Amino acid sequence: MSQTARTRILCDVDFDRDGVQTGYLRLFHSSHASAYGFLPIPIVVIRNGAGPTALFVSGNHGDEYEGQVAVSNLARSLKPEQITGRVILLPTANYPAAMAGNRVSPVDNLNLNRIFPGDPDGSVTQQIAWFIAEQLIPRADFVCDLHSGGSSLLYAPCALTNRAADDALYGKQLAALKAFGAPLAYVQGRAQGQGGNQTLGGVAERLGIPSLGSELGGAGAVSREGLAIAERGVRNLLVHLGILPPGRRIDAPETRIVAVGGQEHFVYAEEPGLFEPLADLGEAVRAGQPAALLHTPETPWKPPQEYRFPIDGLVLCKRHPGRSLRGDCLFVLGSAMPG
Amino acid sequence: MSQTARTRILCDVDFDRDGVQTGYLRLFHSSHASAYGFLPIPIVVIRNGAGPTALFVSGNHGDEYEGQVAVSNLARSLKPEQITGRVILLPTANYPAAMAGNRVSPVDNLNLNRIFPGDPDGSVTQQIAWFIAEQLIPRADFVCDLHSGGSSLLYAPCALTNRAADDALYGKQLAALKAFGAPLAYVQGRAQGQGGNQTLGGVAERLGIPSLGSELGGAGAVSREGLAIAERGVRNLLVHLGILPPGRRIDAPETRIVAVGGQEHFVYAEEPGLFEPLADLGEAVRAGQPAALLHTPETPWKPPQEYRFPIDGLVLCKRHPGRSLRGDCLFVLGSAMPG
Amino acid sequence: MSQTARTRILCDVDFDRDGVQTGYLRLFHSSHASAYGFLPIPIVVIRNGAGPTALFVSGNHGDEYEGQVAVSNLARSLKPEQITGRVILLPTANYPAAMAGNRVSPVDNLNLNRIFPGDPDGSVTQQIAWFIAEQLIPRADFVCDLHSGGSSLLYAPCALTNRAADDALYGKQLAALKAFGAPLAYVQGRAQGQGGNQTLGGVAERLGIPSLGSELGGAGAVSREGLAIAERGVRNLLVHLGILPPGRRIDAPETRIVAVGGQEHFVYAEEPGLFEPLADLGEAVRAGQPAALLHTPETPWKPPQEYRFPIDGLVLCKRHPGRSLRGDCLFVLGSAMPG
Amino acid sequence: MSQTARTRILCDVDFDRDGVQTGYLRLFHSSHASAYGFLPIPIVVIRNGAGPTALFVSGNHGDEYEGQVAVSNLARSLKPEQITGRVILLPTANYPAAMAGNRVSPVDNLNLNRIFPGDPDGSVTQQIAWFIAEQLIPRADFVCDLHSGGSSLLYAPCALTNRAADDALYGKQLAALKAFGAPLAYVQGRAQGQGGNQTLGGVAERLGIPSLGSELGGAGAVSREGLAIAERGVRNLLVHLGILPPGRRIDAPETRIVAVGGQEHFVYAEEPGLFEPLADLGEAVRAGQPAALLHTPETPWKPPQEYRFPIDGLVLCKRHPGRSLRGDCLFVLGSAMPG
Amino acid sequence: MSQTARTRILCDVDFDRDGVQTGYLRLFHSSHASAYGFLPIPIVVIRNGAGPTALFVSGNHGDEYEGQVAVSNLARSLKPEQITGRVILLPTANYPAAMAGNRVSPVDNLNLNRIFPGDPDGSVTQQIAWFIAEQLIPRADFVCDLHSGGSSLLYAPCALTNRAADDALYGKQLAALKAFGAPLAYVQGRAQGQGGNQTLGGVAERLGIPSLGSELGGAGAVSREGLAIAERGVRNLLVHLGILPPGRRIDAPETRIVAVGGQEHFVYAEEPGLFEPLADLGEAVRAGQPAALLHTPETPWKPPQEYRFPIDGLVLCKRHPGRSLRGDCLFVLGSAMPG
Amino acid sequence: MSQTARTRILCDVDFDRDGVQTGYLRLFHSSHASAYGFLPIPIVVIRNGAGPTALFVSGNHGDEYEGQVAVSNLARSLKPEQITGRVILLPTANYPAAMAGNRVSPVDNLNLNRIFPGDPDGSVTQQIAWFIAEQLIPRADFVCDLHSGGSSLLYAPCALTNRAADDALYGKQLAALKAFGAPLAYVQGRAQGQGGNQTLGGVAERLGIPSLGSELGGAGAVSREGLAIAERGVRNLLVHLGILPPGRRIDAPETRIVAVGGQEHFVYAEEPGLFEPLADLGEAVRAGQPAALLHTPETPWKPPQEYRFPIDGLVLCKRHPGRSLRGDCLFVLGSAMPG
Repeated sequence: MSQTARTRILCDVDFDRDGVQTGYLRLFHSSHASAYGFLPIPIVVIRNGAGPTALFVSGNHGDEYEGQVAVSNLARSLKPEQITGRVILLPTANYPAAMAGNRVSPVDNLNLNRIFPGDPDGSVTQQIAWFIAEQLIPRADFVCDLHSGGSSLLYAPCALTNRAADDALYGKQLAALKAFGAPLAYVQGRAQGQGGNQTLGGVAERLGIPSLGSELGGAGAVSREGLAIAERGVRNLLVHLGILPPGRRIDAPETRIVAVGGQEHFVYAEEPGLFEPLADLGEAVRAGQPAALLHTPETPWKPPQEYRFPIDGLVLCKRHPGRSLRGDCLFVLGSAMPG
Repeated sequence: MSQTARTRILCDVDFDRDGVQTGYLRLFHSSHASAYGFLPIPIVVIRNGAGPTALFVSGNHGDEYEGQVAVSNLARSLKPEQITGRVILLPTANYPAAMAGNRVSPVDNLNLNRIFPGDPDGSVTQQIAWFIAEQLIPRADFVCDLHSGGSSLLYAPCALTNRAADDALYGKQLAALKAFGAPLAYVQGRAQGQGGNQTLGGVAERLGIPSLGSELGGAGAVSREGLAIAERGVRNLLVHLGILPPGRRIDAPETRIVAVGGQEHFVYAEEPGLFEPLADLGEAVRAGQPAALLHTPETPWKPPQEYRFPIDGLVLCKRHPGRSLRGDCLFVLGSAMPG
Repeated sequence: MSQTARTRILCDVDFDRDGVQTGYLRLFHSSHASAYGFLPIPIVVIRNGAGPTALFVSGNHGDEYEGQVAVSNLARSLKPEQITGRVILLPTANYPAAMAGNRVSPVDNLNLNRIFPGDPDGSVTQQIAWFIAEQLIPRADFVCDLHSGGSSLLYAPCALTNRAADDALYGKQLAALKAFGAPLAYVQGRAQGQGGNQTLGGVAERLGIPSLGSELGGAGAVSREGLAIAERGVRNLLVHLGILPPGRRIDAPETRIVAVGGQEHFVYAEEPGLFEPLADLGEAVRAGQPAALLHTPETPWKPPQEYRFPIDGLVLCKRHPGRSLRGDCLFVLGSAMPG
Repeated sequence: MSQTARTRILCDVDFDRDGVQTGYLRLFHSSHASAYGFLPIPIVVIRNGAGPTALFVSGNHGDEYEGQVAVSNLARSLKPEQITGRVILLPTANYPAAMAGNRVSPVDNLNLNRIFPGDPDGSVTQQIAWFIAEQLIPRADFVCDLHSGGSSLLYAPCALTNRAADDALYGKQLAALKAFGAPLAYVQGRAQGQGGNQTLGGVAERLGIPSLGSELGGAGAVSREGLAIAERGVRNLLVHLGILPPGRRIDAPETRIVAVGGQEHFVYAEEPGLFEPLADLGEAVRAGQPAALLHTPETPWKPPQEYRFPIDGLVLCKRHPGRSLRGDCLFVLGSAMPG
Repeated sequence: MSQTARTRILCDVDFDRDGVQTGYLRLFHSSHASAYGFLPIPIVVIRNGAGPTALFVSGNHGDEYEGQVAVSNLARSLKPEQITGRVILLPTANYPAAMAGNRVSPVDNLNLNRIFPGDPDGSVTQQIAWFIAEQLIPRADFVCDLHSGGSSLLYAPCALTNRAADDALYGKQLAALKAFGAPLAYVQGRAQGQGGNQTLGGVAERLGIPSLGSELGGAGAVSREGLAIAERGVRNLLVHLGILPPGRRIDAPETRIVAVGGQEHFVYAEEPGLFEPLADLGEAVRAGQPAALLHTPETPWKPPQEYRFPIDGLVLCKRHPGRSLRGDCLFVLGSAMPG
Repeated sequence: MSQTARTRILCDVDFDRDGVQTGYLRLFHSSHASAYGFLPIPIVVIRNGAGPTALFVSGNHGDEYEGQVAVSNLARSLKPEQITGRVILLPTANYPAAMAGNRVSPVDNLNLNRIFPGDPDGSVTQQIAWFIAEQLIPRADFVCDLHSGGSSLLYAPCALTNRAADDALYGKQLAALKAFGAPLAYVQGRAQGQGGNQTLGGVAERLGIPSLGSELGGAGAVSREGLAIAERGVRNLLVHLGILPPGRRIDAPETRIVAVGGQEHFVYAEEPGLFEPLADLGEAVRAGQPAALLHTPETPWKPPQEYRFPIDGLVLCKRHPGRSLRGDCLFVLGSAMPG
């Protein structure tokens, strides 16, 4: 680690050595139960000489699993002799959250993907964010942060990228998005995404490093379909970046790309209730079409509230848990890409 | 309520009056926040003269939702003049659990369907069980307790019944099961079911009253498919019982019926890990076929554990959450009905 | 303690010795933090030869304080030479609840006054109930259990008694109620009281021992007015019982006595909201008069719900905390005593 | 919202449009239970052309209720055609705290009125503070933040203002204080108030905007008397500011104004115990007069601790809960205004 | 398992088969996180033909570890061909408590060794107690329940037995105690032990089966000295019972045996404070000798409380944690055995 | 306090007055339970004219007790007339943690010794750190911060100092270390200590003020041996600093000094398990020597993991609790001081 690094995390692996290295980021967390202990965040580096570096992150949210499986499988299956350059794997970025099956860290209750660039002197999640932002992203030529919907959302498995302000950067991202080969993808409108500029991808954009994300399923479970898309996409991305040879590419359908923009793409609950969806993931819906009923079986004699879709679009994502509160997001729609 | 009733719950409705009555079971719970308050468990009675009584219960587990919606919809849509006899509806039987979206009660941490027949002098869930066992089930000619998989399990939507020891009773249950019209159903082997004789259905069996259950989906969400099966099944059951006229029956596919017996029908996790299923709900599997991988992305360099199905069968149910512990049930298989 | 006593609690004091004795009921509670420790429930016995025994209990609910202060003051001020007979004082009956300022025990979450007669082999609160029922009440000629409204209710300070089924017993209780000298009192209709027969007073009634209660204020605070009534009432009751000489009686106003019966004496919240009372404690109200508004400042554009009093009556008790849930008791009314 | 606004909160209403607008501040909080959800903080703007702007805030502390009711009532009753200028209403500023009936936010455990000016990138309460400081206060010509004592304190209902360092500003505040028409008011000595410069009023003072506060009761309940004072005061303040015409003023008694300064105005518990107050709200007391006893009914044989008032003064505020710890404030005294 | 067994626990092992069998007691616990899951309590049976049966239990309290290690080591090292008869090993009797490092179960908050004989229909700890009492103890000729002091106590490593009412039974226990070969042991006076008759040993005594206990250290840690005593004792006990041949006995010092009786053997804290012991484990002390100081560094100007030993004795056990409350046990003394 | 002080804490004592002063740091913490209350952190100042100032801090971690007792004893025993200069005593620096017997604050979950220099506007622990860094350390000529191992570690009682970058400062620290007279001490290698530069000692070093620490035992208990070392050391340090006269020095053995450096001095758990240490505190061990076994009694048939010491060294510290997780520190070794 560079002499001037501000991180307090110790790193077991040498990023500049050829071969496979495995170890932990040692994030010291002096708690009542373990005064001198560290949180062991696993990291794997696979390197074969000069060449591009790809960084794969999963477990940014601890309850999003397809990426964690795909990245772990890559850690065991990818051999240095197969590649040119370097692959850095961080399968459980928010390790305490991943162990707990939780979106946010049980240690400091923080959502890693809402606090970038973090703080080297802060609480444990802030220290993780800082390490990724200071030590990992700057080493990468491409960053891939694999998400799913998490415990509260279910996505039609898809890839995604931000509409970066810099056109050249956006072009690289779009090319990679297509190379990834998910059947569906969306482009997040500028400065309108969930998490704003406090996400991992936001750091990459500020550094001018292209990045890609995914939403591979959700509901706190492992989706077989989403996992297959992730495994293929990760491999195809390595081919696209020139780290794996072209012959390793796996056939994929052409990706359908839609756009997500402002609040008109979202349906929110306006009162508490039990959410019955009236549309399916991947369904094309029209403005005004019934979207959901919110029931109150605690007063079964009262009729449910009805919600309608605000715009035409494709159902990208729906809320998973039944019981819902005012302000909970029920649906996200993708719309046609602006010409 | 009869003079000798031991329940401490006050009931707003008169079971013997014609028409629609709605109100609460007033379950007094003297807490720090509400010394004289009651937990308001909604109850609806719809009656039209003499005739059979059907009791529909949902929300026995608070995070099982299709039944809660179907029973609430019935409460609003069923008119006394349409029926002969009586329908008693208890849409959120474990009201505190239902409001919390939780399997068990947040008040006393009890699982209502594991403590029957309850205790009139016990904690709140014990009092609910007692009321159902003393006041509701004995009034019924048929009991229908609508379940889903809950937060931790996902079922292929199905109906179910216990293999009652009494053949005549079992015959009535099987007939009702077929009338219900779910595409899939299973018969629970004698004394082998989850919950043993401490379930709501166990009380009905001891009283010689036929009963039916369902598992309409799960994962703590509302399944559109499961809800449609529930709505049709409830209506068809009312026709079957003679409460609704035959003309109200909704067409349904013939029900495929399988059997669930002892521990060989279950796959359990033997070590902690992240559960990747290798088979789908409704899939026919063979003994020895790979069932699941349990990954440990916290040590991504270690290979996952592999599990195999112990018998030939149909995948009825799978675990939903990714992170799993030793002893967690990963799959339940149905096998061919014994001849 | 008798040889056949089933209690597991050790008692530091000898009930049959003259003079003042102080000590603890040692309730052994083998916890993670204290494997061999006991919960020290203070007890004081003041005795002077043969004569009647009065038992004063407070802290039955831990957040009801006037009684705790009055009984503690009595423990320090009453001298054996002043009395004839015996006074037993249990100022913090539910000791863990009293230390926590909580209605119910933080150890087992039980409400002591809803679980009588308890269980000598049960959890800590069940053991306390059993000790009081087996060891204290049977030693008494009169039992006085001093309550207040607790954290969730505020009472017009008053005394109370149950309408015992036995007329002779009820007569004794009524005479004592008048001797106590509270400005207001109520008689709880038969089998309609909060807590049913699981209260301390219920045990006394089953044993044929007269008893008296109080509701001296509430809201989790010490009321100066309620404390003054308690101090006078306790002393006058000792005079009435012949334990203190007649000259020790303190002048008191005549007691106004009203009746509390069934659910028509109660106003309950029907929806969640912020409770604005529209009547004051001690106010005479008429059926149909506005009782309360429940506001929803989280949606300030919606009008509040309005509640009305169901019968004519005197406002005995009102809910204290603002935020309220469906089923919370907002008001209790007393009505004219049946002739 | 201005282009350079740093807040991440979306605002449903347009502050510059005439008429009544209602909606939410959408405070996105990406939690385990709701990844894309927002906390819906209600806001109402009533505008009629050019003129002064008054900002009314309540629910700054979630368990202080009179202001929440008064501001909600204003939101429904005030018509644009009645006013000149603009009224901005934020009835539940700390929305999660208000819904929980809690002083501090249950989300991040922060006390909104101790963290101003907040942080646009911080936790949810920090984001609320920032929005108020950046978006609401600068739009106002007058700020009124309606408090009560909260769960732990009970105030003689009163208005208050800070002794602003700028005499002109202080003069405006004093005039508004008198116009408000509370029977009692106090002036908080410079830099001595609870919360120091981290309060909402501190932000206003730094911006040179006059502001007023209130303490309308407390103990976590709605006070009828305090609510009446709030309703009148809010209206009279609108008249005073020229937003309502003079004819709308409601008669009020002259306000008695006292001063609160340093630690000599406070009585604190020095040991744990059960607090018995020996003086009433509004009572004039003398230095050395007994203020309180702290009892220990867990050792009833020990005498209570006695506390005395340190100065002559008027009892403005007393602690509400019985059980108290070392360092808890038992009383606040107002003294004569410095000449 | 016998046909009439009332336990609901499934047992993987066959107690009557020769060889080594390992598996789990499957304690079904239908929770929110795992509706069909079981708590896997490991059990090992080693059998070689006819002969006596010894039952070794550890982890009765989850934070007592030497026994858990010794019993686990025995499970791996003891070979069927070495023994005559049968050894049943239950290394983590209260499995959820052992996994949590807790005295009591985190599931139902129950202390297993205070609720015997349990309840086959009760909560999980009650079901464990019942299984041990119904299925394991009756199969044994000798029961050995290995305890340590747990998180709150530290013992001079020792063995112990109860002074069984039946002299023949007591004689067998005393012989086994000596054979065990701990340097120190104590005899618990009749009906005076911690836990009364609700312990595992109490069940054995009622069935007339001899039993032995130990206290091998404590403070929630593994003591090297205590573990060595346990390993030797367990082996010597097997020799004593004839399960291992005499040649396997390990030399041991003669056991010093003392008696523990009533409350005079205990020193308790009378006020809260920070516990400084003034005597060491194994030290011989005299009545009146200083035992402890309880400091209050939160008010460092106040002198500490001083405690003295009530009788002459040997210090068997001391409290471990510094901060202590009224009623916490600070010391246990052993005294000379009654002649 | 100086006019420009940024702390919000009020301080009862005047640091510049002769004699003994006792009082509290009033740390205002406006909570739900106490809106105007303060956390009373005791402070004692003993002064006699001009001369050096020594600052003694304990309770930096709330569950480290020997220092709290020694500093409290000093507060009561040290008389102004015995000294020259000034002694400042802060016995429970993290007062809420000390009252809870917890390493970290129960209020904000922060570890005081990992957040220096704190924040005057932050949460309560951040405010404490700031006060110590701004108000106490700059007043001192020498700072002594008395630690023990806390709940999770057990140390061979020792003193310690950092290898300050400035040789002169280091020289002063080493001289004081020897004067303290602990039998064992260690020097923490530059920038390698637990806590980095965020400790109390780190602040002192940045200000060029010499400081000393200790590790007097641990495991959350009071060690008699450690307390004796602390009492002697504190006194000898006062003699060394010239605050007490030379005649007050207590004889002490020569201090054995070892060095602690980087990660090779630590043994960490690599998998979860139950920790059996294979070496004792103070033992000299060799590289490769078995250090520990980690058992899994939940699967007793699996062999334990074995750990070995990485270097030759002296066992300074071991983990205390049995159950351990990956990343927990099992041992710390001291090695020979670099020449």
